[in-house]
Amino acid sequence: MIYFDNSATTLIKPPEVSEAVAYAINHFGNASRSFYEAAMMASREIYNTRAEIAELVCSDNPLNVAFTSSSTESLNLVIGGLVKPDDVVLTTVTEHNSVLRPLYLKGCQLDFIDCDDHGVLLLNELESLIKPETRYLVCTHGSNVTGNITDVKRLYTLCKENNIIMILDVSQTLGLIPVTADMADVLCFTGHKGLFGPQGTGGVIVNDSLPFDIVKTGGAGVHSFEMFQQNVMPDIFEAGTLNGHGIYGLQKGVQFINYTGIEEIHRRERQLTQLFLDGLKQIQDVRLYGEFSSSYRLPVVALNIGEMPASDLSGLLWEKYGIATRAGSHCAPLLHKRFRTVETGIVRFSFSYFNTEEEIEEGIAALQNIARACGN
Amino acid sequence: MIYFDNSATTLIKPPEVSEAVAYAINHFGNASRSFYEAAMMASREIYNTRAEIAELVCSDNPLNVAFTSSSTESLNLVIGGLVKPDDVVLTTVTEHNSVLRPLYLKGCQLDFIDCDDHGVLLLNELESLIKPETRYLVCTHGSNVTGNITDVKRLYTLCKENNIIMILDVSQTLGLIPVTADMADVLCFTGHKGLFGPQGTGGVIVNDSLPFDIVKTGGAGVHSFEMFQQNVMPDIFEAGTLNGHGIYGLQKGVQFINYTGIEEIHRRERQLTQLFLDGLKQIQDVRLYGEFSSSYRLPVVALNIGEMPASDLSGLLWEKYGIATRAGSHCAPLLHKRFRTVETGIVRFSFSYFNTEEEIEEGIAALQNIARACGN
Repeated sequence: MIYFDNSATTLIKPPEVSEAVAYAINHFGNASRSFYEAAMMASREIYNTRAEIAELVCSDNPLNVAFTSSSTESLNLVIGGLVKPDDVVLTTVTEHNSVLRPLYLKGCQLDFIDCDDHGVLLLNELESLIKPETRYLVCTHGSNVTGNITDVKRLYTLCKENNIIMILDVSQTLGLIPVTADMADVLCFTGHKGLFGPQGTGGVIVNDSLPFDIVKTGGAGVHSFEMFQQNVMPDIFEAGTLNGHGIYGLQKGVQFINYTGIEEIHRRERQLTQLFLDGLKQIQDVRLYGEFSSSYRLPVVALNIGEMPASDLSGLLWEKYGIATRAGSHCAPLLHKRFRTVETGIVRFSFSYFNTEEEIEEGIAALQNIARACGN
Repeated sequence: MIYFDNSATTLIKPPEVSEAVAYAINHFGNASRSFYEAAMMASREIYNTRAEIAELVCSDNPLNVAFTSSSTESLNLVIGGLVKPDDVVLTTVTEHNSVLRPLYLKGCQLDFIDCDDHGVLLLNELESLIKPETRYLVCTHGSNVTGNITDVKRLYTLCKENNIIMILDVSQTLGLIPVTADMADVLCFTGHKGLFGPQGTGGVIVNDSLPFDIVKTGGAGVHSFEMFQQNVMPDIFEAGTLNGHGIYGLQKGVQFINYTGIEEIHRRERQLTQLFLDGLKQIQDVRLYGEFSSSYRLPVVALNIGEMPASDLSGLLWEKYGIATRAGSHCAPLLHKRFRTVETGIVRFSFSYFNTEEEIEEGIAALQNIARACGN
């Protein structure tokens, strides 16, 4: 198999990730629940994972990193704990359903930043969208469909000027490009994509204390006689037994990134993406979705060939060439409406540090064959 | 180390659990997200885990098993999705904070079933506690402090007679004693205790369709153009990428139980518990918390020696004898108030199928030495 679906989950992980999880399953107690060595080891390694992630995002406080089971849970807890039904919230048409649906659930008033034909957000329109009542901006740092990277510096500056709290979904960017904790007020991340961690891991990173309401509650191993767990980071998001096993694996994934260097990872992925894009130029009738004039983008290439439905193309790639891609709408309904690809879908190629030049070339050759066979 | 903290998390797992998770981390794609083999394998194995759990609880519909990241998350989603702030809810003083706190969060009116000095629920008082407005009963199947098992048959009969929906917390019982889906309307379970699965796994089992509100939402890989994921089992509880890696490990834990037989597991644990209880009789000044006249109980023994604070006793057991127990309040504040052990705490011994007679005897010898040294 050639695996080009790294935006869904990274499949090739540093080997120490699975080794660490297997070790943890057979050696960890329940973190924060006692003081014998197996429980202390779990507590320590969870803290060390916070520290490893804090290092990656240039934060000096590991306790500003809280763990959840996924980016979806992070966004639900953060949006659920901050946004009120009568708030006015700004978001974008490029969002994943993990952002859109928790906002819909709140029933708050939503204003959408639109994008152009390449999926680039129309930030010039932003100032006119900001109302005196706008309290939050929730948006993705990088599109899971186009691979375009949002100009968060510009967005966050505008937010601060207008007393808007900015919640950034870094599911597609953390581990792939430099992400720092000071890019927004709150960052929501997943563990199993760019960070090479196991599924079932994710979290929330904050800069300052924010007035989160508790929306998930339960035992915390301490302060059992209080009505709720403490309303401080990281406890506010961590009710119940943490996924100590998965978090230890995540530590090894992030360690790999910190050791390799995020710039080196981005360089390598850019190189593979460019090789793929260069190869695509030989193939007629390829339609790309995204902004490709800059090389500062995610290693994601969304495309269709002629009028072929995306699921047919993705199916052929898998069945004839053993190439795994993702067809469909990628849980980003508004962007697909914008691209008029609701019916046909789009085929997404997403690369990782662990892909090779040979795999990219096989991908191009497969697309060439398919395009030729359907008369293009 | 002698590990007697299995009610917190089981540490000795069948070896195939960690092997399965390690395999999954290196081979699974993102379940329900595509049709290439790695993604299909994840989907298939998640379904097979549902089927394995359905078999364990004698349910004929694997899709009535939904996965969450923990029992705490399950209880938050179930209580959050059913109970309304103006509902009247019945619960008990033996509950864990994972039941109590989500109920407190709802702000609903709570009525508590009290217990006697041995932690046995006063079910005779129950009928007088049921009001015409009582809509839910939320209670544990087995106490994580005393190991007492609740007479759920009697409770559920009363619930049905009074149109009360019963939500049962089986965190301490599933995998240890026979638990069937028809014991209540909803069962909330964890994966990392009696089921021998990894941390970061848990779920919800239902019998019939109930009017759950969506409280956690996000991408589901399908129906992306709908405002929310589908309001059907299991989708209602499964927004975002599932912990496919952990769930595959859980499958192996449950498989071990189904293969060994739940009766055999219970028999073995009863045997170990009885050996421990018999040994305790030699030790003066041991105070037990729980009802020990019946052998139909969990392999949990909660005790104190004389006036020694529980943390001192548990500390000595660990530091001098390498025995891991759990001191404190076990996230069960109301029961500790009932037992007047808020200040001293209680030391909990909780055994597993994988403990041995030799370990039990070492535990008794250690307690004997400690009791003797402090003049008892």
